[in-house]
Amino acid sequence: MHIDISTEEFLFNGQAYFLPSLSIDNVIFGFHKNELKVLLLQLQNNPKWELPGGFIYKDEEIEDAAARILTARTGLADLFLQQFYVFGSTQRTRKELLVEAMNQITDQSWLMNRFVSIGYYALVDYEKVNLQPTETANVYAWHDLNKIPELFFDHRQIIEKALQTMRLQLNHLPIGYNLLPEEFTLKSLQTIYETILGRKLDRSNFSRKILGYGILQKKEKHYSGSAHKAPFLYSFNKEAYFKALETGLDKDF
Amino acid sequence: MHIDISTEEFLFNGQAYFLPSLSIDNVIFGFHKNELKVLLLQLQNNPKWELPGGFIYKDEEIEDAAARILTARTGLADLFLQQFYVFGSTQRTRKELLVEAMNQITDQSWLMNRFVSIGYYALVDYEKVNLQPTETANVYAWHDLNKIPELFFDHRQIIEKALQTMRLQLNHLPIGYNLLPEEFTLKSLQTIYETILGRKLDRSNFSRKILGYGILQKKEKHYSGSAHKAPFLYSFNKEAYFKALETGLDKDF
Repeated sequence: MHIDISTEEFLFNGQAYFLPSLSIDNVIFGFHKNELKVLLLQLQNNPKWELPGGFIYKDEEIEDAAARILTARTGLADLFLQQFYVFGSTQRTRKELLVEAMNQITDQSWLMNRFVSIGYYALVDYEKVNLQPTETANVYAWHDLNKIPELFFDHRQIIEKALQTMRLQLNHLPIGYNLLPEEFTLKSLQTIYETILGRKLDRSNFSRKILGYGILQKKEKHYSGSAHKAPFLYSFNKEAYFKALETGLDKDF
Repeated sequence: MHIDISTEEFLFNGQAYFLPSLSIDNVIFGFHKNELKVLLLQLQNNPKWELPGGFIYKDEEIEDAAARILTARTGLADLFLQQFYVFGSTQRTRKELLVEAMNQITDQSWLMNRFVSIGYYALVDYEKVNLQPTETANVYAWHDLNKIPELFFDHRQIIEKALQTMRLQLNHLPIGYNLLPEEFTLKSLQTIYETILGRKLDRSNFSRKILGYGILQKKEKHYSGSAHKAPFLYSFNKEAYFKALETGLDKDF
């Protein structure tokens, strides 16, 4: 779904097309070189970064709006996308950003009103992402989670909450599956768990546990000069993995 | 926060006071006689039940709005209240309900527009709840979770999602603490876990596990005629309980 309207129409009559007071912010996670990364954008003429977000058409499902915004930013469709929290503080406002970024804007714009934002997080395969430039954004870039630059309003809090939610859902959702390429090392999987949990895990304990679930398949090593030094590669046994997630990987009761 | 306005003003000019397009639905859980119950209301002239909900004043925090609605319905303040999901289907509408329940309403009312609803769940001590009658609702009642009557639009789905969320959060949130009175039996606590998890748990295994956390204090039995047959009572060691919840009761990695 996409309706072509002029910038002026969007700024001063957007409420005719979109639900008023509501926005969507996407926290897009990718995994690369053993670092969990988040996708941020920087609007023209502005030093601060923000999460890629957007609005909901009046007759559009909110999940469809989140997916549409995600596809527009990453070039990927059918992604793992999870609604996680609503950010509605009366203190959050786009006014400052909008005035700095768009010189046509005035108090008459619907964008100057209070917005409640629905947070979604997405897990994408970093290698497949083809960052899309847009009219209003001049830079899109991946940032390491532990080196996040200064963000607008509550966007740092939104990222923190996404991580906190993933922490609670780690054993019930295919988080590793969506972040990793087809074949990966146990070290990569362990790093994802460590980053989300915010603490170091014992290597042998992690290997024993995760292999014990029967959800991973070890790949044959192909001989090459240095192959005997390379770590084993694994892939998910998709059927077993999704079955295990239904009851949770780590239930004890 | 409360603004007194006439029913007509509310119906036809409510958008001047409240955020448009947004509502709140509260799923209020209580525990009584070994049953997990949910609080429902029935509007005048209407056979279907619904969740107690409301709207957000333009300069009100959304958490404050959820708490205000909850207090108005239960008479209780400072309750455990947790935002859990947003329900925004284009198919959800209050039109049918409103037309049946309010004969003054017309299509000009802001209430006839599409609403996205923020779901909160609350855990309350059943014994302390004093149900408040309101102008528009004629019946408030607790319903057993496994005997829920016919509900309006997506309210059954909202209750299911609240349960599903509690299931994921069971080991990270003080769910037992908020539902149980000061002193309780292990059987009551086990029943809460069983209802939320949707499956039976082995009694001796549950006792061993839950006592192993060191979060419960056994109470002295007071002698009475049948006291030797009565089960032991427990209370939460609040400090130990909340400390344990920080990392999760059941982490294994």
